Formats: sequence, C-alpha cells, structure tokens
Amino acid sequence: VISFTPITGLPEFHPGDDLVTTIASSLRDGDVVVLSQKIVSKVENRFVDLASIEPSARATQVARECGKDPRLVEVVLRESTDIVRVAKNVLITRHKLGFVLANAGVDQSNVPGGRTLLLPADPDASAQRLRDESRKRFGIDVAVLVCDSFGRAWRMGVVGTCIGCSGLVALHDRRGETDREGRKLEVTQVAVADQICATASLVAGEGSEGTPIVIARGVPASYRGNGTARDLLRPLDQDLFQ
Amino acid sequence: VISFTPITGLPEFHPGDDLVTTIASSLRDGDVVVLSQKIVSKVENRFVDLASIEPSARATQVARECGKDPRLVEVVLRESTDIVRVAKNVLITRHKLGFVLANAGVDQSNVPGGRTLLLPADPDASAQRLRDESRKRFGIDVAVLVCDSFGRAWRMGVVGTCIGCSGLVALHDRRGETDREGRKLEVTQVAVADQICATASLVAGEGSEGTPIVIARGVPASYRGNGTARDLLRPLDQDLFQ
Repeated sequence: VISFTPITGLPEFHPGDDLVTTIASSLRDGDVVVLSQKIVSKVENRFVDLASIEPSARATQVARECGKDPRLVEVVLRESTDIVRVAKNVLITRHKLGFVLANAGVDQSNVPGGRTLLLPADPDASAQRLRDESRKRFGIDVAVLVCDSFGRAWRMGVVGTCIGCSGLVALHDRRGETDREGRKLEVTQVAVADQICATASLVAGEGSEGTPIVIARGVPASYRGNGTARDLLRPLDQDLFQ
Repeated sequence: VISFTPITGLPEFHPGDDLVTTIASSLRDGDVVVLSQKIVSKVENRFVDLASIEPSARATQVARECGKDPRLVEVVLRESTDIVRVAKNVLITRHKLGFVLANAGVDQSNVPGGRTLLLPADPDASAQRLRDESRKRFGIDVAVLVCDSFGRAWRMGVVGTCIGCSGLVALHDRRGETDREGRKLEVTQVAVADQICATASLVAGEGSEGTPIVIARGVPASYRGNGTARDLLRPLDQDLFQ
C-alpha cells in the first residue's frame, strides 16, 4: 500500500526559509517527500523581476509568434538550449537541465508582484540537500523528489513529473528479468519517480488551495537508491523527434 | 489522503471470466478501481495467434526496419492508423483508438503460447461495463480506469497511462480559476486519470510478481464525473509533431 498525504497548514514560503524544520514533525523514516518545484524555487530565491529584463530581438520575434510577454520569453530563452515548438500561446523549450517543457518551467502563477520564478538551479542537488538535512538534523531517513507539471506530446492535460531526486531509484531498470512464461519483459524501464510525482501532484492540487508538499508512504524499500532526475532524460540521440 | 492497494491473491484470468465477482469483496463505495490493460484484454479474449497471421509486404518492410517479427508487425499495423516512428527495436504507432504508443499496445509478455494480446476493443466501454456491474450486482459505486504502460517522447521509462475511464473526470478543466493573486492559472487542464494510473501502475508492478488490479481510495469526490479516456487525446490539429 502506498499512501499520499498532503502536509496541510504550511505557511507561505520565502527565500531562505528553513523547509526541513517546518516539515520535520510530519516525516518518518522511509517516506518519500514530494515538493512542488514552486516551493523549492521560492526558498532558493529563483525570482526574476520582469521589469529588469530587456528582451533581445530574438525574444521579441518569438514573443510575437506565441503571443507572450517579450520579457517573459527572454527569460525562457535564457533558461533554454533549444526551442522545441512555438505557436499561438505555446512555447515549449528544452531547458538547460535537459527537461522539455512549456516556458522552460518559468512560472508566473502564485508569484506576487509581476515576478517570475525559475526552476531550481539544480533540482537534484536541492533534493539531496533536503534529504541530508533531514537525516543530519532530525535523524529521519527520507527520499526527496521535486515535482513540476509537464504537458505531453500526444495527450491533453499536465501530469506531475520529476525534476529532482535524491535517495530513490528514478528509473527502474528491469532488463534481464523475465515474465511468468520465462520470456524477457517487454517493458524494461519504469519511470518510478515520475509515477510517484504524478499522484503527488494530484494530491497537492494547484492554485489557491494547493498544498505544495506531499508525503508518499509505503514506497517499497527496493526503490531506495541513488537515482537522479537526469536518469529520466531520454538521450538526444534516442530522441524520437530529432 | 489517497491510498493505492493492490488486490492480492488473484487467479490467472481467462476469456469470459467474471472479473467483478472476483474482486467485489475488496471494493467500497467511492473507490477508483484501476485494472491493467492486460487483464481486461484477457477476459475479453483479445488474443491473436501469430501462426494465423500472414504479413503484408508493408509489414515485412517495417519489420525489417525495426527488427521485429513480421507477423507481430502485421498485427500492430492492423491496429493502427499511422506509424509515428520506426527504428531499430522501436515501432510507435497511433492506435485506431487514438493513443500513441509502442507496438499499438500489442503485448507478447505474460501471454502463453506465442499469442499476442490486443488492447480491449473499446476500453472506455470495458470500464463502464465493470462499473455498471459493480453497481447493479453488488450495490457498490466505484469508478473504473483501465491502464497501460506508455513511453514518452523526451523521457526514459514507461508510466502507467489511462486508456479507459468510467465514473471519473479524466481531464480536469480549471480554465477560469485563479491563483492566490487573482491571476488566471497557467496550468488549466490536469490529466487526473493519468495521474492516478501512474501510481497504480507502480503499485501493480510488472511481470511475474504483478498484481493487475489496484484500488485507489480517497480520490476526492469532486473528481467523480463522466470523463472518458478519449478526453485525454490531444486533437490532431493540436499535435505538436504534425
């Protein structure tokens, strides 16, 4: 049995806040703590004031194509290595960290004062830091995932997706295992961290009633490991759309 | 709190078996029952004997490109409207039902005797039938999802994904809602059914130790509704890769 419990009654978080102390009393050994990207980015002060941004000619051109604020587009392009798709209301890029997602994960919702919020600079490191602090300061051994909402190529709607991981097998490799008939498994790699982030994101909700930290309890110990969110990135030479 | 509990001790299922009677004692009002595609297909006798298949010239050609059995490729092509991608060991198609997935969901693992197993003919109808039977015969009001493992364009590993839905909002449309600042939500459509299938699939596992039916308990009543898996298909004119 795996259960997903939101941590309720959390304060609004600000740069420098001590996340671990705030949630330590809710944690138990073996928990998987799933944090929304937004809360991690806020604590890590990943705000960018749009008023400080001077859009480049390219950003202005792309902004015209997608109908977005040229300053926002400038921020998105600075966060990205490639534009994957631009269309009316759509700007999908490959983030410097390798993730393909809308607006490079740059977020304007729930961010006061015309500011935008970037993804954490290194979400795997953010996850590891929280995990280390939980262990060192509170003696609690947890795994930590950082989650953002991603769209998909052929499907409607977003799903929670892992962008940071510490203490868990992100990608479970079952190559070599066999089924009941002794035949090699067809499905050989399972995106464990994404599967956990998907339901955590549903439990967290979005918007005004959101609870940005969710505890997944009962994840089998066999999924403990040293995976990172980078394990979940399809190498460019296997990209289906290059 | 949402919990995911596998139903253990299930028998091997065969065509015509009575799924609902087998699991009724595990169900409560309000549960979301997530069934693996494979078990639904078996009960619905969606087996195809490869020995009976004569591959077409096109299937033979495609089989050469991907290195798969030409008879399997023939079955896949008959299930599909388009080939999305073919490469060494890779055959991704658009299934007649609209889903883009590997081998049109045609499965050779866990299927005895050189047979393959197609997706259910109409997985939304399969889900609705199970839901109706649960209510009529046992007086238990559940929602039902049918789940398969899908790969993704830019990410490694598979995740559980919804191919059939009854009694649940598959795609939660939040357009018009606002965040704490009164700003319109950026993320406006959430793939609720996919998010539930993702963790259900993790709990179900794959292969010899698999438990193909998982109960999700505690899904908010606000997600009750009349969605279908078709709601989760991105319309072709919004396809990012046409």
